Amino acid sequence: MSEFETRPKKLAQRLAPVLAQLQRQAVVETVTHRQQQKRADVIENLVQRQQSAALSRELKKLNNADIAHLLNMLPADKRRTVWQQLDNHNAGDVLVELNDTIAEDLIEITEPARLGIILGTLDIDELTEIADLLPAPLLNQAVSSLEANERNWVERTLSYPQGTVGDNMSKDSLTLNERHTINQAIELVRSTPELPPQTDKLFVLGKHRQLVGVVPLIDLIRHPGETLIEDCMDKDVVTFAPHDDAEDAGQAFERYDLISAPVVDERHRLVGRLTVESIMDYLREVAENQALAKEGLRAGTDLFGPILEGARERWPWLMINLCTAFIASRFISIFEDTIQQLVALAALMPIVASVGGNTGNQTAALVIRGLAMEQIQRGNLSYIYRKELIISLLNGVIWGALLGLFAWMLYSNLLLGAVMMAAVTLNLLLAALIGITVPFLLDRLNKDPAMGSSVVLTFATDSMGFFLFLGLATLILV
Amino acid sequence: MSEFETRPKKLAQRLAPVLAQLQRQAVVETVTHRQQQKRADVIENLVQRQQSAALSRELKKLNNADIAHLLNMLPADKRRTVWQQLDNHNAGDVLVELNDTIAEDLIEITEPARLGIILGTLDIDELTEIADLLPAPLLNQAVSSLEANERNWVERTLSYPQGTVGDNMSKDSLTLNERHTINQAIELVRSTPELPPQTDKLFVLGKHRQLVGVVPLIDLIRHPGETLIEDCMDKDVVTFAPHDDAEDAGQAFERYDLISAPVVDERHRLVGRLTVESIMDYLREVAENQALAKEGLRAGTDLFGPILEGARERWPWLMINLCTAFIASRFISIFEDTIQQLVALAALMPIVASVGGNTGNQTAALVIRGLAMEQIQRGNLSYIYRKELIISLLNGVIWGALLGLFAWMLYSNLLLGAVMMAAVTLNLLLAALIGITVPFLLDRLNKDPAMGSSVVLTFATDSMGFFLFLGLATLILV
Repeated sequence: MSEFETRPKKLAQRLAPVLAQLQRQAVVETVTHRQQQKRADVIENLVQRQQSAALSRELKKLNNADIAHLLNMLPADKRRTVWQQLDNHNAGDVLVELNDTIAEDLIEITEPARLGIILGTLDIDELTEIADLLPAPLLNQAVSSLEANERNWVERTLSYPQGTVGDNMSKDSLTLNERHTINQAIELVRSTPELPPQTDKLFVLGKHRQLVGVVPLIDLIRHPGETLIEDCMDKDVVTFAPHDDAEDAGQAFERYDLISAPVVDERHRLVGRLTVESIMDYLREVAENQALAKEGLRAGTDLFGPILEGARERWPWLMINLCTAFIASRFISIFEDTIQQLVALAALMPIVASVGGNTGNQTAALVIRGLAMEQIQRGNLSYIYRKELIISLLNGVIWGALLGLFAWMLYSNLLLGAVMMAAVTLNLLLAALIGITVPFLLDRLNKDPAMGSSVVLTFATDSMGFFLFLGLATLILV
Repeated sequence: MSEFETRPKKLAQRLAPVLAQLQRQAVVETVTHRQQQKRADVIENLVQRQQSAALSRELKKLNNADIAHLLNMLPADKRRTVWQQLDNHNAGDVLVELNDTIAEDLIEITEPARLGIILGTLDIDELTEIADLLPAPLLNQAVSSLEANERNWVERTLSYPQGTVGDNMSKDSLTLNERHTINQAIELVRSTPELPPQTDKLFVLGKHRQLVGVVPLIDLIRHPGETLIEDCMDKDVVTFAPHDDAEDAGQAFERYDLISAPVVDERHRLVGRLTVESIMDYLREVAENQALAKEGLRAGTDLFGPILEGARERWPWLMINLCTAFIASRFISIFEDTIQQLVALAALMPIVASVGGNTGNQTAALVIRGLAMEQIQRGNLSYIYRKELIISLLNGVIWGALLGLFAWMLYSNLLLGAVMMAAVTLNLLLAALIGITVPFLLDRLNKDPAMGSSVVLTFATDSMGFFLFLGLATLILV
């Protein structure tokens, strides 16, 4: 029973009696966390006590993907110690599996000679995967040591922009000729010591290396051995071009339940292979970085990086936000006289601004999702404007009235309450307008609407919140 | 050459001469968009002109995944017309592929009799997938028409909480006995008319249906026919438990490059199968909904839903935000006298609040990513506090000084500038504290730190921004 268990299971069983009384769902998470935590603690402890023999032994128990996961979790200094302990062959595989930020850090501290040896253990798909992270001279050296056709391939792959299929494809695939038989295909599979990862089909090429079909592995078992490939191959193939967007490719992988797919050039010659693994990798990276990018941080920002760099990385965003806040503040200063006469306005105005920002961001989130799912087009845009504006009007009147009531009661000033209600309603309408328009325009300009929308929106609802509220107050109250 | 093309390619080729002169990367996106847009336009046009024969013909050209994609894009009324045109068998497959919101809408408008027939075309994996969306009586009816073992399976699967492996697993897998030979396994594959999707390995069961190993499909080709399964099977298998977290499973799929994996109960009996497709589906859904949840919207919020519902869906969030904004405003009202004496403070105070919120959200984004990647533990927490506080101090002094300079120049008041600088610095320090503490605590409480952090953070930096700035001004300036 124990022979095929994975590690999570083992610990889960040992802990089972203790945890059984806890709530069902919480159990699993606790186990997973504890188990990972425990492994990291053991390693950290060994590093601390400088027990390098025991450390080596512990590391040998883990596969490379797990070591990478562990390195991602360790603080910088211990991460480096463990890294130095790894033998060169494992180090290469681990490097490929690491988060980019961590990999970059370890590459930086590794002496060039060792790094050269480590890179030498990688196949060219692995090499291209971490190419961005390598210092240029070392990359050039590694590339120049390759055979001509491999060198060509690496150079071509590196030339595709990030986020394209070409940037995420791998080189090796099993290919057949359409005149081959099933038996010959089986022979090919048998004689290939290691199949490219996630091989679920063989690619069939015509005379000029152009793709003419695919043969799922399973068909090698199902068809009689003498069948000609051209008679049994699948001709209806989902293919990608190297310049296709990798996110679109991800959607296609999901929609057509693909495991691997051929990448072809404009003359349908096979140039690479895209696998569900590389696509998942890419999509996860995008999702992780999006949350950072929304706050104006670059993808690779390292939580454990040097302090000065950490401070400087935040400057562009700080500057943008200082500018918008500064301009919004100028809208207030227009009405300093009004505020002086009725100082309650100063206390109430941030409410108007903040409620506008919040509901605007709700609208924007819906529109951004609609754009991503291609639900929003020019044709139904007016419907969406109408709907969101009515919603804003409704909510503005309801919640504006409530706020107005508070203002009236707090300051015993009915007109102040009315101004509050009107300003909230108007700012919510503005928020809806901006929350639709800005993401839509960014999308049309081929920018990611999830990125810039929030800054523009908050700027508008802040400035206009102050302006509307104080402006109305000036007209009506003083 | 044309025989294996997919649709994206065809249009890309027709448009190639026109687009060739455009910038390389933009081309691909344009083509994809145009192609999807064009297909939707054709269909919409046919719906508009009520040409149902032509519409049927157009729909027949598409596979079900593409029809689903199209329905996701169409405005509500046209979506419904197309749906009514689909024949019942396709409708079932399409339903499974649709976004939940859209599927829910179409289920609602379908007469129960037709819906019953459509559900009858689904296999039980498909049925459990859309079970959440079905009205209870219809689901019960569909389930009760199943055979006993299928009914058991559906009921058990539906009992697993959302976000668990059990909720995402499928029932069917090809299983072998360890005493079988490779030839018998090949026979099994040949005699199965349709393999479960994404079958890359067969599961080997022992006497009591407990999992003892797996045989990759490829091994059926590689090993001699007489080999016993127990002699060639892979005993080192990554397995999951039904209550495991689906996101953790996703990480394991990525880490170990899995295509499918067995799900086993606590006694290692096989209970289901998890595929990379279902995991990708799940992860995409989570990512999509996270952006909405951050703005306080529930996962299924329909951009095209009824207006009143749309308005009401935003109330809880509006209320939370009104409360926090209201409380922040009370911090200002404490200092109304001070503001009356120096009205410049009213114009400057939102800058202090806003800069704090922005940098705090940066820290929180880094911490949330660190938590998700398990880089942050209790052990290195103090390192992170130290680092982020020093960064805040640095940036607070630098940018606070700049803002102070502006304030000094604008209002010719040196002390006002000094107060500005001090308040900005203090608020940035507070923002870093909250930006680390809140996500970390939420994570410890098994809540998603990405969800609640921003509200708490903005509340704190707004309130304290006002309080620090106005408080210091009261102490020093008036």
